[in-house]
Amino acid sequence: MTGIAVLGTGRIGRMHAENIAAHPRARLAGVYDIHAPAAAEVAAQLGVPRFDSVEAALASAEVDAVLIASSTATHADLIEQSVAAGKAILCEKPIDLSLDRVNACATKIAGTSLPIMLGFVRRFDSGHAGVRKAIESGQIGELHQVTITSRDPGMAPDAYIEASGGIFRDMTIHDFDMARFILGEEVTEVTATGSRLVDPSLMQRCDDYDTVTVVLKTESGKQAIITNSRRAVYGYDQRVEAFGSAGMAISENRALDHVRLYGAEFTDRATPLKNFFIDRYADAFADEISAFVDAIEQGKPVPVGFEDGRQALLLAEAAILSAAKGRTVATREIG
Amino acid sequence: MTGIAVLGTGRIGRMHAENIAAHPRARLAGVYDIHAPAAAEVAAQLGVPRFDSVEAALASAEVDAVLIASSTATHADLIEQSVAAGKAILCEKPIDLSLDRVNACATKIAGTSLPIMLGFVRRFDSGHAGVRKAIESGQIGELHQVTITSRDPGMAPDAYIEASGGIFRDMTIHDFDMARFILGEEVTEVTATGSRLVDPSLMQRCDDYDTVTVVLKTESGKQAIITNSRRAVYGYDQRVEAFGSAGMAISENRALDHVRLYGAEFTDRATPLKNFFIDRYADAFADEISAFVDAIEQGKPVPVGFEDGRQALLLAEAAILSAAKGRTVATREIG
Amino acid sequence: MTGIAVLGTGRIGRMHAENIAAHPRARLAGVYDIHAPAAAEVAAQLGVPRFDSVEAALASAEVDAVLIASSTATHADLIEQSVAAGKAILCEKPIDLSLDRVNACATKIAGTSLPIMLGFVRRFDSGHAGVRKAIESGQIGELHQVTITSRDPGMAPDAYIEASGGIFRDMTIHDFDMARFILGEEVTEVTATGSRLVDPSLMQRCDDYDTVTVVLKTESGKQAIITNSRRAVYGYDQRVEAFGSAGMAISENRALDHVRLYGAEFTDRATPLKNFFIDRYADAFADEISAFVDAIEQGKPVPVGFEDGRQALLLAEAAILSAAKGRTVATREIG
Amino acid sequence: MTGIAVLGTGRIGRMHAENIAAHPRARLAGVYDIHAPAAAEVAAQLGVPRFDSVEAALASAEVDAVLIASSTATHADLIEQSVAAGKAILCEKPIDLSLDRVNACATKIAGTSLPIMLGFVRRFDSGHAGVRKAIESGQIGELHQVTITSRDPGMAPDAYIEASGGIFRDMTIHDFDMARFILGEEVTEVTATGSRLVDPSLMQRCDDYDTVTVVLKTESGKQAIITNSRRAVYGYDQRVEAFGSAGMAISENRALDHVRLYGAEFTDRATPLKNFFIDRYADAFADEISAFVDAIEQGKPVPVGFEDGRQALLLAEAAILSAAKGRTVATREIG
Repeated sequence: MTGIAVLGTGRIGRMHAENIAAHPRARLAGVYDIHAPAAAEVAAQLGVPRFDSVEAALASAEVDAVLIASSTATHADLIEQSVAAGKAILCEKPIDLSLDRVNACATKIAGTSLPIMLGFVRRFDSGHAGVRKAIESGQIGELHQVTITSRDPGMAPDAYIEASGGIFRDMTIHDFDMARFILGEEVTEVTATGSRLVDPSLMQRCDDYDTVTVVLKTESGKQAIITNSRRAVYGYDQRVEAFGSAGMAISENRALDHVRLYGAEFTDRATPLKNFFIDRYADAFADEISAFVDAIEQGKPVPVGFEDGRQALLLAEAAILSAAKGRTVATREIG
Repeated sequence: MTGIAVLGTGRIGRMHAENIAAHPRARLAGVYDIHAPAAAEVAAQLGVPRFDSVEAALASAEVDAVLIASSTATHADLIEQSVAAGKAILCEKPIDLSLDRVNACATKIAGTSLPIMLGFVRRFDSGHAGVRKAIESGQIGELHQVTITSRDPGMAPDAYIEASGGIFRDMTIHDFDMARFILGEEVTEVTATGSRLVDPSLMQRCDDYDTVTVVLKTESGKQAIITNSRRAVYGYDQRVEAFGSAGMAISENRALDHVRLYGAEFTDRATPLKNFFIDRYADAFADEISAFVDAIEQGKPVPVGFEDGRQALLLAEAAILSAAKGRTVATREIG
Repeated sequence: MTGIAVLGTGRIGRMHAENIAAHPRARLAGVYDIHAPAAAEVAAQLGVPRFDSVEAALASAEVDAVLIASSTATHADLIEQSVAAGKAILCEKPIDLSLDRVNACATKIAGTSLPIMLGFVRRFDSGHAGVRKAIESGQIGELHQVTITSRDPGMAPDAYIEASGGIFRDMTIHDFDMARFILGEEVTEVTATGSRLVDPSLMQRCDDYDTVTVVLKTESGKQAIITNSRRAVYGYDQRVEAFGSAGMAISENRALDHVRLYGAEFTDRATPLKNFFIDRYADAFADEISAFVDAIEQGKPVPVGFEDGRQALLLAEAAILSAAKGRTVATREIG
Repeated sequence: MTGIAVLGTGRIGRMHAENIAAHPRARLAGVYDIHAPAAAEVAAQLGVPRFDSVEAALASAEVDAVLIASSTATHADLIEQSVAAGKAILCEKPIDLSLDRVNACATKIAGTSLPIMLGFVRRFDSGHAGVRKAIESGQIGELHQVTITSRDPGMAPDAYIEASGGIFRDMTIHDFDMARFILGEEVTEVTATGSRLVDPSLMQRCDDYDTVTVVLKTESGKQAIITNSRRAVYGYDQRVEAFGSAGMAISENRALDHVRLYGAEFTDRATPLKNFFIDRYADAFADEISAFVDAIEQGKPVPVGFEDGRQALLLAEAAILSAAKGRTVATREIG
């Protein structure tokens, strides 16, 4: 049993804590949050200790690994501290909003053999992973075009948006990682376009976009197209489509239920989509913990690591530049 | 070019006349209706002669064949007259509401080598025919169960219902033929159940049902299940499903269009179903004419003939008896 | 926390034990199996006591309730013993293969206020329950016809089939309960047909069928059609369709994953169906435990009780008689 | 009855000739082709005159209108000649491969009140038009993103590709028009990317692409994304998706038939897609003729005119420049 401490017990940290507690090969060693009552509530509910500080958590012999789910600004520091303490790490995305900070962190932890895994949970979705498997097994031949549709069910609160680092770093970053996962090779060119259609005044104020399209290209010419919106009224729209020389594989949306309704004005009507990521990716979050435990216990490589987190951020930086300049940006321009 | 006269220019006769007029290998030789103005209107519209009488039509050298679309009570007489006149026949279902009359007609025309085809148009539907082809090509292995869902979009006028001969002879008869077509062997047992749910008072008055289920069985044990309703608010529900030892083939409903709609309360909503048979089976009606012309010009056997019409009526008689007696009826009890 | 002992640790008992252990409001008080090593393995795996006997389990103060998952022949006895011991009961279907024994059991436990729940798990499936909800909320108007397609992915071992009590008591019984659940009123007439198509020689030997169709009718004329096969090569086929005066609701099959594949010969190809009941109804089994705990802790009525188990068996008896006699059987003929 | 002459009797001209001949309100006045035997064959088959020259066709009193389906290089000349002769025009796309030539043609025919319609047939597809209607009726709220997937089933012959003017002018041009049709406002920015993945050596030789993605943006920030491939093995992939503030509307692909197949390895498998445009857009081609006849007979405006043809070519020019320069191109840069 691997003992895992959860650092940060907000909505996503709490979910991870529950998944770890329920996992047959993991043990929730305790929880920490900068806001002690939040951690206390989760600790009480799950019957585990609350740590008074990050240091206490990292010092505990019960803690083999940490799951970092605190606010973004703390991620890089916590990674560095955890590596120093010899703990395996599963860190929520992004590593940091600043590529410089990520690079500095990379330098600092260089050479560690500890498992450091990034929480790009969508890689563990059976549908999206099924598309990747279809490619690997040759079912669609040579990959040519990837289409990722990714729309949130609704605008986050203004305060969240303002501190998010912008849509490319906050939301599209998942899709950048998905594109890399499906493409199976590095992106060399990024072209991005943004619009302000959902909440123009907020977007204006933040110098951000709520509706974006990004086109990625690899050295060999493979294309990936990402379309994002901050608000889809019909729910959390999450689709991945891979087109190749011998066919196509599609990972479909998930409705709340497998019921179809017919009436006087319509037929074959499905229920709304699962909403939001905690429901849509419930199985994927559980499988993510399994993969992390496998990496720790069996020495398997982490399926998505620090460098994947860095690459996704690098693509976000390229997209920001591309949208601002109105031109294709080579990833080598960014770093 | 085969010259075809249409006898009876009601809704369905008019449609057949248009299909014949537009057919590359057929020629509409003229039309007749007991109500002369109805025939005159169609004749004018399509630029063809109106015949003053059935005799005139059958006497015309321009007429190689007749399409009988007049009222049911006239079908058997017209078949006999047309055979006597040496004309090929495409007759709308049913041959007659009385099995005795059908048997008498069979005796009278016995030995003719003229093509006599029955208008069970659904056999020509590419979906339903596709299910049959899947069976013939071995794609579902040995056939075990056939499920036919067949619901009209709305009640016909009371007068029509009253004269229809009852739901089994009027509506289920199409499904009896479809069951025989898909089963590929004769039915030996019929078990039927009827309810009065759509218009109980009318059904009571007519001693009829508006909602029925029929289970058919063949000598080898294959089963076919037919469910009918006189009114489906979502449109003309026409599905055929064939289940076998190696798989299943389904002929699906046809929506008005290939548009799917998503909104705040639903996803993947399709348009209503095509409504009614003239739209749903438009291609099938055209292909039916082609098959008829093939039989005449190339001497191919008619794909669905007089005996098929007789067998479907025989199953209707068995169903009527079964529903009345509450027991399974062997088809050999009927004739 | 409700303490529950699991009696019988075969495949399904083990699954229930795991679900109870993982349930936030239940506690697995221990397990028992007539084959001690089987119980010991589950006990060790889940870290709970193994009981030496049923008596020991029923005597334990830790045990508030029992889940009966032992062989069918023991169910009625265990129900009687558990009621005598004052324990709430969740019993796997069927209560017994003999209606007489079930009636005797009913007499013996008459008047108990203990929650006695029957394991008709499909009522807890969100899809099937969604169809029921659509009816209750008026979305399809007055219910007219229910169509239940229920096919197992493969033949059980010969020994199982031989001891099963026949397909109507063993397999269709789930569909009888589903029909009652969806219909919302009692069945008054049963008409059944059976064939031997999957394994004719085994079926001959057991005087059983592997392919059946049953038509049920209520006093008001509502119809339910059940089609069963012991083997569907494409997986565990579980569909429920409710047709009414204002629309239709369909509970669809569940594919292994939401991936669609396109190739040179086909499009929109889905993965095989979930296979078998433990996977297909995984969420339903967990929700079943919740409903049981609700009944115990909050005094809510059990959503499916002893009488539901008796009624389903009664319909099975009627179907057996109907198939044998070739006639519709009134349920009042049976009991 | 409007008399229409077809100029050019290749594959598409022949189809148009058949549609005109079958149209209830049009009359095929005759056909012309620079290769006389080709025209003669069609003329004989449809029982209409063959014209010896364009001049003869334009001089005929039987000719009210011309359908131009000759090679692209002749379109602009034929438009000018036909306008001079006072004939209404339905011209296949594109007007010309050169925007200068199109502009010169526009100048020459300026002021004519003759109906001049462009053959962007996809606007007449009931699915794509259904998406537009959903937008116009407010069903998806404010339009935000349009996604057009458009893939040919296979590479055209090398000679065709070499003379095509490149993928943007030859293939994407349909999608540029579709984007304008769905967006309902003019595009101001074009960003295009091309790859050589299907036939790299041919593409290299032609300095062309076989796999492209184009992102369009309007003044108000609406986005349209077009993905093209010259070869989809699963058939002619033609989808349009419109996402807005209140929902989404999707025009789906068309399978050859409504049959779904289930087997040991798969479920719900559809037939391949309709292949190619003559089948996929058969109804749309017929409706296009109707719209043309309406414009002539009833003086309705043509639903898609010369300026639409010019705008689509302008977007193609912008895309070519964008792909070459690796930057967003403002349409006002092109003209």
